[in-house]
Amino acid sequence: MDAEAARLLRRLLAEQPTAALATLHKGEPAVSMVPFVLPAGGAELIIHVSGLATHTRDMQDHPRVALLVTADAGGPWPPQALPRVSLTADARSLPRDSAEAEAARAAYLARFPESAQTFELGDFGLVALRPVAARLVAGFGRAYSLVGEALQAWLLDTPG
Amino acid sequence: MDAEAARLLRRLLAEQPTAALATLHKGEPAVSMVPFVLPAGGAELIIHVSGLATHTRDMQDHPRVALLVTADAGGPWPPQALPRVSLTADARSLPRDSAEAEAARAAYLARFPESAQTFELGDFGLVALRPVAARLVAGFGRAYSLVGEALQAWLLDTPG
Repeated sequence: MDAEAARLLRRLLAEQPTAALATLHKGEPAVSMVPFVLPAGGAELIIHVSGLATHTRDMQDHPRVALLVTADAGGPWPPQALPRVSLTADARSLPRDSAEAEAARAAYLARFPESAQTFELGDFGLVALRPVAARLVAGFGRAYSLVGEALQAWLLDTPG
Repeated sequence: MDAEAARLLRRLLAEQPTAALATLHKGEPAVSMVPFVLPAGGAELIIHVSGLATHTRDMQDHPRVALLVTADAGGPWPPQALPRVSLTADARSLPRDSAEAEAARAAYLARFPESAQTFELGDFGLVALRPVAARLVAGFGRAYSLVGEALQAWLLDTPG
């Protein structure tokens, strides 16, 4: 993969605050918006979701999900060629008060300080999404698939 | 539903050029980006997709899909409260050279003139997505569900 495209698309994960999260809902595809953070040096996306939300129950029933992170419209790209990343990922709830949850909470709050009050709500919890495959689209005819070590290396390559 | 929120969210469908399209892929949720147009006076979204693309085959195998249209980040809303519309919809290929396909093509090209050349590619075709349910989120605690006649009326209420 072209190094410039790889960096542009990794930066999308660092800069875009939300993803489209596709879950399996009673056998049908569903999609909702989630703010997310990919902590520097981490290879899992962190989301903070309500146990009352449909997508949360969907992930408990069926942990395999898909995520799409897209560049904003209105930039230099035509809509058909917007840079974007699709991830296939596995969801896992982080046990409340675990060291892992504390680190995820700190990273989430650093990204979304205005969400502090949702951490005081009993029904909210942190979920880690571990990507197992990525499809990177850098424009027309510039698509790359990543799995395994190449995927890990790309996720860990924190944009400067 | 509050009329101002209804208008704001209907305008999203008119102004945002792309949606996140969730499809069922071999029993798993998948999500990809699609440019779309909701023609004025119509109640179906039109997309133009390659028969070689995974999402196109997914829709042929399983026509029930979900779509998410989200306001751009960076506006007046915090990421958690971005206005957004989730649709549950049924996909249907428009027969090539039908009057329906001609009307859809005209609407699509009026929205995306730069995509004219993809209409010369034999593997591309038009697909209509008929919403059967909508979830409108206008901000924290301001969510509305629409089905049936209320959904139709909202879709047909072309923003001025």
